Amino acid sequence: MKFNNKNVFIDSSAVLGENVQIGDNTTIYSNVIIGDNSIIADNCVIGEPNNNYYTNQETYMNPKTIIGSDSLIRSFSIIYSGSIFGNFLNTGHHVTIRENSNVGSNCSIGTYADIQGDCKIGDYCRFQSNVTIGQKSEIGSFVFIYPNVVLTNDPTPPSNLIKGVFIDDYSQITSGTIMMPGAKVGKNCLISAQSTVRGRFDDDSFISGSPAKNIGLLSKMPFFNSTKKRHYPWMFFFNRGMPWEGVGFETWNKSKKND
Amino acid sequence: MKFNNKNVFIDSSAVLGENVQIGDNTTIYSNVIIGDNSIIADNCVIGEPNNNYYTNQETYMNPKTIIGSDSLIRSFSIIYSGSIFGNFLNTGHHVTIRENSNVGSNCSIGTYADIQGDCKIGDYCRFQSNVTIGQKSEIGSFVFIYPNVVLTNDPTPPSNLIKGVFIDDYSQITSGTIMMPGAKVGKNCLISAQSTVRGRFDDDSFISGSPAKNIGLLSKMPFFNSTKKRHYPWMFFFNRGMPWEGVGFETWNKSKKND
Amino acid sequence: MKFNNKNVFIDSSAVLGENVQIGDNTTIYSNVIIGDNSIIADNCVIGEPNNNYYTNQETYMNPKTIIGSDSLIRSFSIIYSGSIFGNFLNTGHHVTIRENSNVGSNCSIGTYADIQGDCKIGDYCRFQSNVTIGQKSEIGSFVFIYPNVVLTNDPTPPSNLIKGVFIDDYSQITSGTIMMPGAKVGKNCLISAQSTVRGRFDDDSFISGSPAKNIGLLSKMPFFNSTKKRHYPWMFFFNRGMPWEGVGFETWNKSKKND
Repeated sequence: MKFNNKNVFIDSSAVLGENVQIGDNTTIYSNVIIGDNSIIADNCVIGEPNNNYYTNQETYMNPKTIIGSDSLIRSFSIIYSGSIFGNFLNTGHHVTIRENSNVGSNCSIGTYADIQGDCKIGDYCRFQSNVTIGQKSEIGSFVFIYPNVVLTNDPTPPSNLIKGVFIDDYSQITSGTIMMPGAKVGKNCLISAQSTVRGRFDDDSFISGSPAKNIGLLSKMPFFNSTKKRHYPWMFFFNRGMPWEGVGFETWNKSKKND
Repeated sequence: MKFNNKNVFIDSSAVLGENVQIGDNTTIYSNVIIGDNSIIADNCVIGEPNNNYYTNQETYMNPKTIIGSDSLIRSFSIIYSGSIFGNFLNTGHHVTIRENSNVGSNCSIGTYADIQGDCKIGDYCRFQSNVTIGQKSEIGSFVFIYPNVVLTNDPTPPSNLIKGVFIDDYSQITSGTIMMPGAKVGKNCLISAQSTVRGRFDDDSFISGSPAKNIGLLSKMPFFNSTKKRHYPWMFFFNRGMPWEGVGFETWNKSKKND
Repeated sequence: MKFNNKNVFIDSSAVLGENVQIGDNTTIYSNVIIGDNSIIADNCVIGEPNNNYYTNQETYMNPKTIIGSDSLIRSFSIIYSGSIFGNFLNTGHHVTIRENSNVGSNCSIGTYADIQGDCKIGDYCRFQSNVTIGQKSEIGSFVFIYPNVVLTNDPTPPSNLIKGVFIDDYSQITSGTIMMPGAKVGKNCLISAQSTVRGRFDDDSFISGSPAKNIGLLSKMPFFNSTKKRHYPWMFFFNRGMPWEGVGFETWNKSKKND
């Protein structure tokens, strides 16, 4: 349905792996490398030139863009040149990802997500729709970010200072939360919906409010799941698409430490 | 201007009613049915295949998509296969509507709205821009949802449990509100801007705050309109595009009950 | 890369200045005027017809759209007919700007911004991503609006009354804030993240909270920048792209007053 080679433009310098499929009305600009078995759906732009292109089109060289294998970029998405993605990337529709970001493997990035460049994102992260990730954000692995969350970066707007947000492994940032410039969130935290988060928070914090406070240890909070157990740390109860699927988090985590 | 049959793709299995117009650069995939007099503007995708398509393109069968008559889908919108819409659907631009949703007649869905699938939406609903409707939401008729509202669904994120939000007829959810998983809002309620709504609320509630509380009976609140009368229930004061336009809500409501 | 004249449609009535470039897959409808050296990138629609077009295509006349010189409209953006933009307009991707808006020079409008029409916007404004500007908003010059801010306009939703928001020169509206209908913000104000702003605020106010309060004079607040000085009024510390770049705000401001 989607791959009729209709109105497709692929620059001759692009390197497509085996079984790569490019959807109709999609453009692949220069110096894009796409890994085996990846699908770029219809109406996408991959390797979008950065701002220098517009000021000097004749001498502009498009930085290298690397999309790993087994990825799926859904329609109307724009990925700038100069970003690198691991394998098994999965995006929604109308996504915009700016230049110089480094995104690990197995990440999923929701519809209308806006990743503004110079970001570092680990593996197995999931960003839902309408997430805005400001420039110079640093995000660990297994971090899930829910709709309408914003990671800001300017402590005294407007200024030339950029202080990115840092979020460590396994933390969950729920809907409508604003992360203030330079906020640092440890591992295994949960931030409740609509919070305004400033400052530094330890591992295993339950963070809530505007301004957000540390309510206590997340692992002691009465968040019970359908098995009537405390749900956090969540990795013992959720494994869909996670590397511990099948073996369980405990076994996976031990084997990982032994590596 | 928009209908020059330029770079249009319409699958041979699509069934277009009388006077249907399809805009330039638009794609209509298989098993789409579009009612009489409907307009699909330019750069749209209707009948977007669901995820199964990517895993097995050869045997994939696109579920049926039905768009009623007299509808207008504006440009850059994506409607997945497997959803059903009543007559007089009206969308903004860059809309994304996922699979298996059932949307009544006379609904309008704003620019950048993201309806995530498996939703049930009544008649005469109006969603403004940037609205995010989580999977398994259930929304009555005459419900208006304003910009940047999110309907969530996972009570202990991340988990495999989905508890959709329920909003009953005539209720108004204003800008920036987050509806927490499983929240239930009765008929004729007003939720004030930027609220965080958890739990169950009776009919005629004025709901406000983070966490949101029932402030009192909405019909007794001092929300006066330009006629100096209490504005709620709003149906006595607003009728543009509503089925009681011309006859008034009282008459329409009585005749409806007599049906 | 972007300008191969591939699947481009330009109406014969459009007037393009010198050195104007039109990207692939872009449509320019009738009665659009584009100033010298402007770039409309790929996959854009400029001069989008308003709703009257759909009801009477045969007699519809597209209102005039004017885009100034030296502008850059990034891909997948839609600009309706009947709006006027000064020189040096700069947009992100997937932007939607409705009809009858009047936007000054040197403005920048971020990705997924939604400007809903009948708005008046001064010079040197910067709107970041996901900003929603309701109909009949009035915004001065040098106003910066950060991600996920909404300017609403209906005091008793739903109604037919539209009371736009007014924001005066140099004010900063930070992330996730909701501006309530008819709110009026003076010059040189800062609104903190996630505020809900109702009513009228004097010049030089620091505005914060839900509902937002005037915390005090912004110029007296302890917001220190990297030079250890009070950052507000910010114009003394930030000049990138501003008309006082090079000469400093004080000199520029004096010369302006002497004009």
